[in-house]
Amino acid sequence: MDGCIFCKIINGEIPSTKLYEDEKVLAFLDIHPIKPGHTLIIPKKHFENFVSTDEEYLLPMIQAAKKIAPAIIKSVGASAFNFTTANGAEAGQSVFHLHFHIIPRFSKSELKDWPEMEGEQPTRIQIADAISKIYRESLI
Amino acid sequence: MDGCIFCKIINGEIPSTKLYEDEKVLAFLDIHPIKPGHTLIIPKKHFENFVSTDEEYLLPMIQAAKKIAPAIIKSVGASAFNFTTANGAEAGQSVFHLHFHIIPRFSKSELKDWPEMEGEQPTRIQIADAISKIYRESLI
Repeated sequence: MDGCIFCKIINGEIPSTKLYEDEKVLAFLDIHPIKPGHTLIIPKKHFENFVSTDEEYLLPMIQAAKKIAPAIIKSVGASAFNFTTANGAEAGQSVFHLHFHIIPRFSKSELKDWPEMEGEQPTRIQIADAISKIYRESLI
Repeated sequence: MDGCIFCKIINGEIPSTKLYEDEKVLAFLDIHPIKPGHTLIIPKKHFENFVSTDEEYLLPMIQAAKKIAPAIIKSVGASAFNFTTANGAEAGQSVFHLHFHIIPRFSKSELKDWPEMEGEQPTRIQIADAISKIYRESLI
């Protein structure tokens, strides 16, 4: 897509440090890493986000991540990693071409807190009912 | 697996608020949500983490997430979500049965910082060379 930085990387208009490539998938090092070996995995066709990506491209991305993650963490001396994507700006998505991050992790202490919600919240049953209703409606 | 809390949920020994279920996959609300609608997706067979999960179970988990995420965020009035897993204790994994989180997001301001690394770091080329070497060796 015109103006998409990841499409330019796929087309070779912008250089990248490639780690893995197949017919559907490209993996390269993030130019703004939060940890050594921080890797991005993208589909070689433009899709905005996780939800809008055809399975024909999405599933090979997952297979590629599973294949290359062990080599990534071993090479940087990490012992674990996060595999994550942001779907939408409010989740932190900044490039609107689907990308999964592989972020090597070295120690628990580097992780941010995982705070529980405060204050009164709907019950799990209430939330589950609302989700099930909308999901069923989406199938009609 | 004996002693695994998610296996107990699959077997019905521990109750859960189920959102979605098929032959290979179960999705239910996290009992320690960080946002309303915080959902866990697990394979119905015990695998420790992302890397060790058979594709026969892993790929249907991704397909399920893509199907149910829009209903989840709509039902709680969110506009975005993170889809994420931790592979290993140092990445924050606390239950050693693979699980993906769907975390609805409402505004950018709730996100933690995404700090870049400080100090001298190996170059991307150095890291990529190390990763490629280990990956090639893993294929032999």
